[in-house]
Amino acid sequence: MQLSASKKAATAAPPPSSQLTTFEHVLYGGIALTAASVLKRELSPGCELIDGKQIAQEIRQEIKDKVEEMKTITKGKTPGLAVVLVGERKDSQSYVRSKKKMCAEVGIRSEGTDLPEDATEEQVLKVVRAYNKDRNIHGILVQLPMPKHINEERVLKEVSYEKDVDGFHPLNIGALSQRGREDPRFVPCTPRGCIELLKRSNVEIKGKKAVVVGRSNVVGTPAALLLQRNDATVTVVHSRTKNPEEAIREADIVIAACGVMEYVQGSWLKPGAAVIDVGINAKDDATKKLGYRLVGDCDFKSCKKVAGKMTPVPGGVGPMTIAILLQNTLEGAARSYGVSEQLGLKK
Amino acid sequence: MQLSASKKAATAAPPPSSQLTTFEHVLYGGIALTAASVLKRELSPGCELIDGKQIAQEIRQEIKDKVEEMKTITKGKTPGLAVVLVGERKDSQSYVRSKKKMCAEVGIRSEGTDLPEDATEEQVLKVVRAYNKDRNIHGILVQLPMPKHINEERVLKEVSYEKDVDGFHPLNIGALSQRGREDPRFVPCTPRGCIELLKRSNVEIKGKKAVVVGRSNVVGTPAALLLQRNDATVTVVHSRTKNPEEAIREADIVIAACGVMEYVQGSWLKPGAAVIDVGINAKDDATKKLGYRLVGDCDFKSCKKVAGKMTPVPGGVGPMTIAILLQNTLEGAARSYGVSEQLGLKK
Repeated sequence: MQLSASKKAATAAPPPSSQLTTFEHVLYGGIALTAASVLKRELSPGCELIDGKQIAQEIRQEIKDKVEEMKTITKGKTPGLAVVLVGERKDSQSYVRSKKKMCAEVGIRSEGTDLPEDATEEQVLKVVRAYNKDRNIHGILVQLPMPKHINEERVLKEVSYEKDVDGFHPLNIGALSQRGREDPRFVPCTPRGCIELLKRSNVEIKGKKAVVVGRSNVVGTPAALLLQRNDATVTVVHSRTKNPEEAIREADIVIAACGVMEYVQGSWLKPGAAVIDVGINAKDDATKKLGYRLVGDCDFKSCKKVAGKMTPVPGGVGPMTIAILLQNTLEGAARSYGVSEQLGLKK
Repeated sequence: MQLSASKKAATAAPPPSSQLTTFEHVLYGGIALTAASVLKRELSPGCELIDGKQIAQEIRQEIKDKVEEMKTITKGKTPGLAVVLVGERKDSQSYVRSKKKMCAEVGIRSEGTDLPEDATEEQVLKVVRAYNKDRNIHGILVQLPMPKHINEERVLKEVSYEKDVDGFHPLNIGALSQRGREDPRFVPCTPRGCIELLKRSNVEIKGKKAVVVGRSNVVGTPAALLLQRNDATVTVVHSRTKNPEEAIREADIVIAACGVMEYVQGSWLKPGAAVIDVGINAKDDATKKLGYRLVGDCDFKSCKKVAGKMTPVPGGVGPMTIAILLQNTLEGAARSYGVSEQLGLKK
């Protein structure tokens, strides 16, 4: 599914003149201009894949460089991330492992506290409070979901908003909603990753129509707020929306984050739209070793025929989330050491 | 501009059959059905005015009753509002006076601290902190704008979010943005007033398309969040939106809060749309004693020909803001005394 950079370029480029048939030469030459434009509209204009894997790699390299710079300026100080894991879910353990591995790769210290499945809420809160006070820790990540007897909201609220690298503290979400005030300390990783993918793919956001499919706290709502901060005209469609395709058809930018497998159809898209697919769903596929393959919230096959730029699944938004987590941790550390400006980072 | 209830009813009701001409009888009788539906579409369907003055009066009466009930249940306790005013702006003084007067009318105690124009930020913060601790105060209102040497954001953030009756504390805005979590303690008065006007005018919000014109912290953004919480599909248009009329034309509900005099045109509306006009602008008018009259952000004359329901200016949203301030104060007091459920109020 993941296309290499060279394949990507081949897909995106128009066919060189030498490869056109005589008939096409006639059409594109302007002799049958009207027919040509009709044909062009029917043809897939060539969808450029937005290579999240590569962009995330670029971001991680930038972070690595900044961490080195930070070390020089501060005489040895580095960013520190703390990860709190409660219970023994295999998927959570695996996420935590890969986060720690990525930290190590870019020079961010990481440490973790693993609590047993039956830990009390008070025990979790104690761990969070200790990290809140720890001057060497600049980001605290509480791996979700937590066991059911623990009130997640209470735990997340306990994380100092100055170390809330996930950006879910109501103070950070509140600041994200308000313009012309103090910026949020942190912006949630996945939505920020979506915006970063658009910007680094040269998709203009300002003045464009954007539709966000889904209104979750984790992606949809903060993505809409972020697009609006970037001066897009934003519509949020959700489970209660009648005929969501009507709004989607108008959109220059679509962020699909509804958690419904292959929901957005190519026929719903405006030709040339930029499509960011946040969904990760396991679809039965007997040809695969695991018996399934990963698909997004967009029907990739039909969407790529209409979209101008589009993220694949996997290899689109997925790799960005951790990259932005590292970026958030770096920015938190730079603020804490008072070197944001010197490092050219947002304060 | 303010229509009486009887005039409103006359505007809204269809003409009785006896008043139709023979030609119209023929048309509406179904003999010329197609022509009739064309004609109906071209005719103004009769716009019902949403009488904010009357609805606000109803709300204040409900509050008065609840305050009485609270007194009985709690053996004499009442809600208390504190108003902080810095400087000597005539308009601010007048707003504060009318807020206090309205409080008195519904049985809410109000007290105020007036600080001189040259008060320091620390002095203002001290006053806020004292009210934060005062158990008899359930709402703190800092009258804006404050003199320029005072950082408004810092002062507003100092107000305990449990007493933030204006609903602007980032914790309350953050909670408003997040679904399925703890509700905000308070919702900003004007946007909540807009939703209340819609609900009390029997405008269904769920599943409807809504457009908010303007994205201010005070009205546009929280209004959009509220509409979305009520399951509308919301688009926010703003100064960077190209062709805002395209989105507005699709909307079943329009909330106009862009601060541009008579901006929204009747030709931009979907026939039958519900229009809430938040704008208050002074328009030159030599026929008036003051040399101006108040107009909204919608062109009333053209809009009322197309809208199904619409607020006038003045007498629409204006009176709702203070009514909701009183409602917020009542709800804060009920929470503080632990009697929300008994009084049938939101917690």
